Amino acid sequence: MYRPEIKVVDCTIRDGGLANDSHFTTETVRAVYQAVCAAKVDYVELGYRNSKEMFSPDEFGPWRFCDEDMLRKVTDGIDPGETKLAVMQDAHKAKAEDMLPCDESVIDMVRVATYVKDVDKAIRLARSASEKGYECAVNIMSISVEGGPFLEEALQQIEEETDAKSVYIVDSFGSLYSEQIHYYVETYQKFIKTKEIGVHCHNNQQLAFANTIEGIIKGANYLDATLNGLGRGAGNCPLELLLAFLKNPKFDLLPVLDVIGKHILPLAKDLDWGYHLPYMITGILNQHPLAGMKLMKSDRRDDLVAFYNELSEGPHQ
Amino acid sequence: MYRPEIKVVDCTIRDGGLANDSHFTTETVRAVYQAVCAAKVDYVELGYRNSKEMFSPDEFGPWRFCDEDMLRKVTDGIDPGETKLAVMQDAHKAKAEDMLPCDESVIDMVRVATYVKDVDKAIRLARSASEKGYECAVNIMSISVEGGPFLEEALQQIEEETDAKSVYIVDSFGSLYSEQIHYYVETYQKFIKTKEIGVHCHNNQQLAFANTIEGIIKGANYLDATLNGLGRGAGNCPLELLLAFLKNPKFDLLPVLDVIGKHILPLAKDLDWGYHLPYMITGILNQHPLAGMKLMKSDRRDDLVAFYNELSEGPHQ
Repeated sequence: MYRPEIKVVDCTIRDGGLANDSHFTTETVRAVYQAVCAAKVDYVELGYRNSKEMFSPDEFGPWRFCDEDMLRKVTDGIDPGETKLAVMQDAHKAKAEDMLPCDESVIDMVRVATYVKDVDKAIRLARSASEKGYECAVNIMSISVEGGPFLEEALQQIEEETDAKSVYIVDSFGSLYSEQIHYYVETYQKFIKTKEIGVHCHNNQQLAFANTIEGIIKGANYLDATLNGLGRGAGNCPLELLLAFLKNPKFDLLPVLDVIGKHILPLAKDLDWGYHLPYMITGILNQHPLAGMKLMKSDRRDDLVAFYNELSEGPHQ
Repeated sequence: MYRPEIKVVDCTIRDGGLANDSHFTTETVRAVYQAVCAAKVDYVELGYRNSKEMFSPDEFGPWRFCDEDMLRKVTDGIDPGETKLAVMQDAHKAKAEDMLPCDESVIDMVRVATYVKDVDKAIRLARSASEKGYECAVNIMSISVEGGPFLEEALQQIEEETDAKSVYIVDSFGSLYSEQIHYYVETYQKFIKTKEIGVHCHNNQQLAFANTIEGIIKGANYLDATLNGLGRGAGNCPLELLLAFLKNPKFDLLPVLDVIGKHILPLAKDLDWGYHLPYMITGILNQHPLAGMKLMKSDRRDDLVAFYNELSEGPHQ
């Protein structure tokens, strides 16, 4: 009933770090790492390896940089089983030289996040990571505002010029419907012949899990998810739902439920991820969630008509 | 781009009444009615017309009975436009004689909710409603535990023995995936030839909106939704998402956003609808949400592993 080719990537700490400037405690990150390994999820992404010249360590927490000593602090003594450790590098905010050779690092996989326009930077990072011995992936962000010849050129380049194992469709704005997921997977399949296709969805329209399923149905084999959907804005595809759907007998749901109850739900006191109307409005208008996140922190968060009018009459429309 | 045959039924007060024993204030119900009419949604269901012999009016609020004077109190002076007023009758908990002739009532449509085993009771109520001049619909509940010859016989009977305009697939447990929605719509289509097919989804797995879309794609034309998804347990397909998806130019999203901000979000202080792990667990186990609702009200609501083990080892499995 399950498809053994499917690989699941937990990116709770990495994507959740966009909601709290990567300020998770060591205890939380360690608990997440332990639970994801115990659940036998294929990859766990513990943050970004981004440049300290572009992000101030005074402002951003340790999981924006994932220094090796921090990674060791949260992984030492825990049996990873077959779970591999990943970090993300932003194509326009990271440096290749910040990565050690793989055999000196605790990291197994580097995922490069890029806009279509930055694909050459992404390819440089991806090639460097491969040369240093890492697995790698390329995630194309904000896909819902991309398409046409530049996307196709980027896909062709990634196919020909990198050793990435997977190339992702990233619905950063949470605005895609199932028919659009089908369309993007089919577009990718025209160009990506030697790598897998991945999907990373956001939940602005409560479609992150559903769209991940639709990606699977069309052939995507790399799937991103997070504990209880923790992530920027409306959050992501919930890992617990995805594991229950996939039915791979190797997965164990109980450590996932356990860590959600003990470590993730308590974060909801300070972090407003999940379905909220401001995020829904940016989603249906196919806009970046930033305006929604700003509204959620203001005292006007329930003034939805004004927010809708502002966004739909604003400079982006 | 839109399909004019599609009819949307707002059932915020009716399904939400399963979360608060139908104790909405007159002010809330009036605001919902006004907003749904202003949004030009096709139907608004304001509660049940169930029997006071089976539900005590001491325990249940007025929207479990929808007496004509209460309905007039919340609708008088509001221009309904083309929005029709509906109530629901439970096949096993309502009486045909509780319905006045349609021309003496403010109600336009009677929806009969039934289990497969009670279909003969449902047909009696539906026929009586039709004879009195009402539009009518039949909603088959708990569909995820039904199937096979009894479901098919029920569909055949509803097709032949009633004048219902629509026959619904009701995913009471919120356990269906898109492939199963496709399967049920196709099953219904084999028997339902002179009526429309409807979908009513629950959100235990964050699939209520997605599954409603999948129903549309397969041909369902009657769609249930509620304001901000308010409903029993994890709630329903959110009306705001559905209207944005449908793109029928007659719909106006702004009154919907307005009433959510002013009247629905404040209810969240007392009512815990939406995606919560206890509801997710009943959903993935294909069980009634009642155990989840009980857990949510206890001080053990984050003890998810114990709850999962209890349900999956319990008498239902």
